[in-house]
This record gives sequence, C-alpha cells and structure tokens, in this order.
Amino acid sequence: MATVQAARGTRDLLPAQMHARLFVIGVIREVFARFGFEPLETPAFERIETLMGKYGDEGEKLVFRILERGEGGREGKADLALRYDLTVPLARVIAQNPALPLPFKRYQVQPVWRADRPQKGRFREFYQCDADVVGCTTGLADAECVAVAHEALSRLGFADFEVRVNHRQLLRATCAAVGAADREGEVLVAIDKLDKVGREGVTKELLERGFSADVVERLWTVLAQPGNLDAVEAAIGEAAAVPATELRTLLAQVGALVGDGHRVVFDATLARGLGYYTGPVFEAVILGGGVGSVSGGGRYDGLVGMFSGRQVPAVGVSLGLERLLVVMEERGMLPGTGTRTQVLVTRFSASTDPDSLRATAALRAAGIDTETWLGEAGSLGKQFKYAAARGIPLAVVLGPDEVAAGEAAIKDLRSGEQRKVPLVRLADEVRTTLDSPRE
Amino acid sequence: MATVQAARGTRDLLPAQMHARLFVIGVIREVFARFGFEPLETPAFERIETLMGKYGDEGEKLVFRILERGEGGREGKADLALRYDLTVPLARVIAQNPALPLPFKRYQVQPVWRADRPQKGRFREFYQCDADVVGCTTGLADAECVAVAHEALSRLGFADFEVRVNHRQLLRATCAAVGAADREGEVLVAIDKLDKVGREGVTKELLERGFSADVVERLWTVLAQPGNLDAVEAAIGEAAAVPATELRTLLAQVGALVGDGHRVVFDATLARGLGYYTGPVFEAVILGGGVGSVSGGGRYDGLVGMFSGRQVPAVGVSLGLERLLVVMEERGMLPGTGTRTQVLVTRFSASTDPDSLRATAALRAAGIDTETWLGEAGSLGKQFKYAAARGIPLAVVLGPDEVAAGEAAIKDLRSGEQRKVPLVRLADEVRTTLDSPRE
Repeated sequence: MATVQAARGTRDLLPAQMHARLFVIGVIREVFARFGFEPLETPAFERIETLMGKYGDEGEKLVFRILERGEGGREGKADLALRYDLTVPLARVIAQNPALPLPFKRYQVQPVWRADRPQKGRFREFYQCDADVVGCTTGLADAECVAVAHEALSRLGFADFEVRVNHRQLLRATCAAVGAADREGEVLVAIDKLDKVGREGVTKELLERGFSADVVERLWTVLAQPGNLDAVEAAIGEAAAVPATELRTLLAQVGALVGDGHRVVFDATLARGLGYYTGPVFEAVILGGGVGSVSGGGRYDGLVGMFSGRQVPAVGVSLGLERLLVVMEERGMLPGTGTRTQVLVTRFSASTDPDSLRATAALRAAGIDTETWLGEAGSLGKQFKYAAARGIPLAVVLGPDEVAAGEAAIKDLRSGEQRKVPLVRLADEVRTTLDSPRE
Repeated sequence: MATVQAARGTRDLLPAQMHARLFVIGVIREVFARFGFEPLETPAFERIETLMGKYGDEGEKLVFRILERGEGGREGKADLALRYDLTVPLARVIAQNPALPLPFKRYQVQPVWRADRPQKGRFREFYQCDADVVGCTTGLADAECVAVAHEALSRLGFADFEVRVNHRQLLRATCAAVGAADREGEVLVAIDKLDKVGREGVTKELLERGFSADVVERLWTVLAQPGNLDAVEAAIGEAAAVPATELRTLLAQVGALVGDGHRVVFDATLARGLGYYTGPVFEAVILGGGVGSVSGGGRYDGLVGMFSGRQVPAVGVSLGLERLLVVMEERGMLPGTGTRTQVLVTRFSASTDPDSLRATAALRAAGIDTETWLGEAGSLGKQFKYAAARGIPLAVVLGPDEVAAGEAAIKDLRSGEQRKVPLVRLADEVRTTLDSPRE
C-alpha cells in the first residue's frame, strides 16, 4: 500500500490546533470588525496572468500553478494559480468592482500557498490575516492600521510587544544623506537584517557590497539614536522634513486611538525590505518571542491601481497567525485547546436509552455542549474512561433507579464526586457543577 | 490591458455576502460543537494518489491538478490535486493518525474545488460543512448525524423542512423483491429522480433501460405507501426485517434527541445515488425551497478504512452552505447583511482630530463597532452621506463648541434627530440610541 500522508509541506489541523486557531482568528476578526473593516474572501485560485509579474522573480517561482482541467500534465494548460498573498487579489477586486465606495476598509483571513522548500515550522499552506484601507490618502488610515494591529495583540493577551514605525521616504532621505541614493535597495536589504546580525553584521555586508567605509560610518551617524525622530531628522536635514512630520502626526493619532500605555515607537532602522512601500511602514514584534515580526504593513500607493490603470492609494497591515500561535502556545496563552464538550451522557441499557437521549437533548437545548456515549450501552467504567481521555469534565448517569426516581447522577470526573439531582433540574445543576470552584 | 477578472467559475465574496456566510457558518459550527463534534481542517491539496480512484471516472475528471513546483506546464509534474470533498481527506487523516481515539466525531467547514463546466449558480469553488462519526457501529451515531442536521436547520430559522430517512439495505431488498437484484444500481439511479420527474418519468426511464413492465409494476406496489415503513416491510417480506428494525430504532432515537415536533420521516423512495452508502441514508429538503436537498448523508462503512486496510465504520452528514444561503436570502432570513459598523465618528478639523480619535477609541473600548471618517476633515454633509451610503445608523459630531463644552452630538441618520450628550457618557448614550425603538 502506498504511504498515506498529507502532501509535502502541508499539515492537518487536528482538533487541539483548531480550537487554538478558531480562538485566535475569532479575536482578530472581532477586532477588525470593531474598527469598521469589512470581511472579504477571494477564490483560492486566480488567472495566472493576475499573479505573474507581481512578486519578483524569486516569488514567482513559488506560485503553485493549476491545470485548467484535470487532463494531466501533458495536455493541460497551467493557466490558473493558487493565491500567493491577499494583496494582489484585493487589487484585482478593486479593479473589477469600480462601483465599490472608497475608502474601502476590508479584512481578509484566508490561507495562501507558496511552493517553498518545506522545512521545520515552515509550511506551504498558511493563513494570512490582513486589514487594508483602499482609496484614502490621509495618514489617519495608516494610524488605523497601526492601531488595529496594536489592539489585536492586546486583545490576544500580549503585554510585552512593540510596534515599530518608520517611513519609506525617511529611509530614502537617509540613503541620500549618506551618499548612497543610487543604491537605496541594497542599503535597505542590509539594514533589514539589523535585528538578526547586529551593526557589525550590517557593516560587514555593506562593505562586502562595495560601499565605502565612509558611507557606512555616515549611515551609523544618522542612525546613532534610531528611536529619536528629532535626532534622525536633524542628522539628515531638509529632506527628512516631510516624512518626519507625517510620522509625528501618525504617532500622535495612534496615541489618541490606542490611548495611554500604547507600545508604538519610532525606529529609524525599520526597513521592511520591499520596494512595494511608499510611505509609513510598521512592524510588530513580541519582545522575547523569538519568532521575528508577528505583524507588518505600510502604505503602498502604487500596487492596488496596477490593474485599473488609475492611482489607488492603499495602506494595510497583516497579522502572522502562525507565528502568533507559536508564541501563544509556548507561553500558555491559549485558553483550553481541549474539547469544548462539557458533559458526557452515559448509557446504561437499551431500556434507559430514551431517557439518556432526552437528557442529552435537554442539556444541549440549555446551551451546554454535550455528547452521548456512542459505544455499546453498559459498563460505566469504560464510559468514564472515554470522557476523561477526551477531557470532558462531567458525566451524567441515568440508570434504572435514577430514571424511576426522576433523577440523574452528575459525576465530576475531575474530583470523582457524584451526586443525584432531579432530572428536571439537570441543566441548572450541571451548570452549577461546572461553575463551582475546585480545589 | 488584459481583462481583469476572477478565474472562470469562481467569485469574490464581497462584504454583504461575507456577513451572510459568517452568520450561517457560525450557527452551523455552534450546533456541531454543541453536539460534541470537534473541528478539523485539512490542506487544500493532497497527493494525487490520495484522490485518484475515489470519485469514479466522471468525478476524477473534475479534480484540479497542481504542478509540484511553479516551473510551468512543460517540466512540472502534476502530482498534487485540490481537495474535491471533505470525506477522502478525513479517511486519510484517520489512516495517518492511528492513535486518534475512536469514535472520532469531527466537523469540517472548508471549500472544495471541482473543475465543473461553470454555469449560473454553480461554482468551481464552494464550501462544504460536514459532520462525521468515525469508528462507531451503533446506530446511535446515525441518529446523532440526523439530529445535528435537524438542529442546524432549526437554528438557522427554518420551520418548513423535512428530513427523509431510508436504508440502503431496504433499497437492496426492494430491488430483490421486484426481481431486479442484479440491476440495483440502475433502479437507484432512476428512483433518485423521483422528486424531479415523478412516477411517470421514473417508469419511462426504467422501461427504456429495458426493465419489464412487470418489474416496474411490482416496484410501485412495494412503494405504494412510501412513507409507511410497516407497509413497505410487509410488501418486501423477510429481507426487509433487519433494515426496518434499524430504521425504527433510528427514528425513535432521533425523536428522543430532537424532541416533539421533529420533522424526520421515513421515505422508501429516498435513494441517495451513490453505492458508497452501506446503511441508513438521509436527506433534508426545505419544502418549497426549490433548490433540491440542502443536506444529505448516511452510513458508509467501507470508505474510511480504504487507506488503512482495516474496516472503519463511519456515518456522516453534509450541509450545503451555498443552497442554504440561496433559500435564506430569498426568504429574508439573513439578519442584516449590511455593515456591522454602528457609528461613524466625524472629523471637524485638525484641531479637534484628537478628540474625535479619543471618542472613537472610547466607543470601540465599549464594544461598539466604530469607524472614524478617513477623508479630509471638514464638511459634515459629506461625512453623513458616506455613513448613510454605508448603512451606518449613527454619526457622532465633535465640533469646537462641543469639545469646549465637554460634549458630543449624536446624530441618528435613520431619523435625522440630533442631540448633545456629555462626552464622558458617549458610549452609554450611543447604546441607548441604538437600542431605542423607532417608528
């Protein structure tokens, strides 16, 4: 028999993982909606020409292609491709729906697929959670994106995170100021690694790329106090004025939206790689999380208009579900990834089955997640063992004696305690037992 | 410029559609969990050999194949394929996780893809909502599947539906009794069309297929009272005893689980096409819904074990999200598919911006879905117009006068009424306005 397994680089999400994901996605959706972002979903695949030319040569290699009809590799045309991110489909939606009122605030939580070489903790299918504001030039849209990411991290239970903001034009002015205006991309690629390799590593890379020691020294002078916007602006001079003013407004607006104790800071070394961005950029990290950034975004005024041929300003933020889950699991921040089921109704014999099923129905009708034992009726030991293995806290027993007396027994599988209650009060008594504090 | 559009046979789910889907999927998830089904997700694509040989020749043609790496049609190997249903992946999960405790009750809500010829109302990507019990031979698992579908339809707001149940072995006994034991499949295919073409149509098809008039007449004799299990059993004789007893137990158990007023009926003409099923089969229809069945399922003891080489009994039910949405929309059963946003906080000028943003933050913190105007501050008329177009019921105004007085104005865009409230009580007053009955 052929080995039976999921496709390379993919995984099943079993119930424990699903409980965690449904919780986290639920919080993120709620926060996005609280901020007035509207839900959107796009198809899993797009026409190949919609995706080609959007992700650079390296990205393009990772796009999964689909055969139009399942005729097999020889005859089929590979003119469809799996979603690679949520931004290009958004741009396509905007172009295809010219009547959509702008600004359009949408959120989208869907998997994307990349034909990356599979490795530990890196999958070919993973979820993205994006919120974007399309069609709005005012910086307040940027502040909303920063604030919504901040709120999502808070609501998930993180206290020790930091949202770093910078401005693409400030980076450009920095490069110009140090004499590297014509090689901006290379400087950004090097700076982007600062968190990982430190100043020495970045210096080494820049020198290896052929930048003069002089340029590198000036760069570190400008970035001497990377968290001090006034100092960075002064070091750069006139060209920094506009982006510095925009950043000050952004920081003030985020402060008003998030309130006291916000965790948003300016960071002149935040590069966010891609040429893609045109204005403010931001990134969130969990301090000590060990997973890199858990959120990133920025203004990208050039991208969304590419299909429609008109300029469509846009700013967005993406939350990295997979990384958030890694940190939350490590830190025990996930509320109960066990079953939601609270009660197993046992079954004693065929003659009491109708009573067990009616009790099951009554508990469910009262909003209590309830299972009924599906094996052969009889041995209670086996049924209690099953409930315990499933992590179900309570069992309900309805033997002939209980049924005759109009009662049921509630067994707390956590403490082993058991007590009889009137059948008509079963749901209330179950709820009381579930809510009662235990030693 | 190339035409920009979604791939053939696919569609975007814009916010109004998404609100409807999130509501319906939310109800279905809740009902599944209430019954103790656990969530599962599997990857969008599987190894091609996992899917091949499972869906028949016609089904197999509809499987979308994926190229392993994005090298293009010439060199790529099409050794992956998009999920075609949720049952084969479940069987693969069971085989790959032999330690999974049985019975395993799982639900799964995910899209599947079929390379069908696109046509009105029929898409190449659509959601399935499945609940299955794996590893359980007792008929109570079947009753749970019928009951969970029944409860989902009730909770979605349907009153006029019917869940029809039959038994594969009763159909087999029927065919044997009328002298068509060797051509059972053909009889089932014909009977399956009874709803659409009536007795005359089925008779015509059977005669065309070469069945004798005698066989057809006997068939209608057996099915003379298709809703009367006693009558059907008597007409068939001894061979009907076992399935008839199982069906009586099933109906009694469903009755206990669903309670009085349940809408489950026996229907001897329910065939559910596929050879796939081995025991009870069921199907739900919305009376007068005009969309065919909205749910179907049954026991299929042969399928799940195919990867593991052991017999693994299973029974499941599937809810057809797309059809449910069609009927619910037609009947106005979808609660508000407009925006969730309840308040637009307007912006008067740069000087009052901080106040507007703090008010926004306060409303959100109070759990009220709130947007802030993202265009240029100023003209209130434009902002009210935007809110009305978005379907946002209230606007909050903070001009210099209000700010100076520590107040805000709440404008009800439904009635046009406006009143001033103390800023510190804004969230409470907004809630009161939202809750107040209107003419």
